[in-house]
Amino acid sequence: MAYDILHRVGIGAPVDKVFETLTTLEGNRAWWDANATGDARKGGVLTFFNSHDMKVVEATPGELVKWKITRGCKEWVDTEISFQLVQKQDQTFVLFKHAGWREPVEFMHHCSTKWASFLTSSLKALLETGKGRPAPGEVKIYNGE
Amino acid sequence: MAYDILHRVGIGAPVDKVFETLTTLEGNRAWWDANATGDARKGGVLTFFNSHDMKVVEATPGELVKWKITRGCKEWVDTEISFQLVQKQDQTFVLFKHAGWREPVEFMHHCSTKWASFLTSSLKALLETGKGRPAPGEVKIYNGE
Repeated sequence: MAYDILHRVGIGAPVDKVFETLTTLEGNRAWWDANATGDARKGGVLTFFNSHDMKVVEATPGELVKWKITRGCKEWVDTEISFQLVQKQDQTFVLFKHAGWREPVEFMHHCSTKWASFLTSSLKALLETGKGRPAPGEVKIYNGE
Repeated sequence: MAYDILHRVGIGAPVDKVFETLTTLEGNRAWWDANATGDARKGGVLTFFNSHDMKVVEATPGELVKWKITRGCKEWVDTEISFQLVQKQDQTFVLFKHAGWREPVEFMHHCSTKWASFLTSSLKALLETGKGRPAPGEVKIYNGE
């Protein structure tokens, strides 16, 4: 039995722009972690928060980006993060999934809310206004954090 | 097999205030649906969006509020929404769960993101600043919606 975090946002930008953001280091630094390093293309490895390695296992233009976590906290290792892209009229829908959690621990609750916040307040905002809110300046979901 | 939406937010307010917001009609109108009707106390029925009935099956002060959906869209009927409350120092953590989805449909992705948005942009904001963003004036997660 595994547990998945699911989200969906609609972004007012062409699917190619969303794909480009997710498959370049510069793009990922602009919405998730301003200090990310590595290679965001298929077969590359991205490092987020100086501690979590994501191998880019899928990067199909206009359709899908998928990362497998190969190093990081024990809850994340071997889980997969995917972004399925679907353009409909004037926006691109991102179906997000962080799949394969072993247990629905409190940290999974945390990550679920945090992902929603990054997707709406940062990825969507970046593509629509040119300005995201990547960590460490991201929207906080706790008081005083 | 069932699927659950999980979230967690930390709110800079006493647990009693969070509980009061979730167990009064006025409170629920201030963070989720400005046009909600009904009775938010244990045993009561709340109606949201003029279409979804939630029976209040648990309301334990300082600990837990749980609703069971008795009328609404087919994906929601018989699912349960719970808010587990834990005060830690100067904030109250809300562990949110919308449990018992039959399938991880695209609408579940949507609701997961929407719940996170209501919890962070509205429930948390309401309790910390006095101003929530309930529907129909809530934060939008699609372009142009």
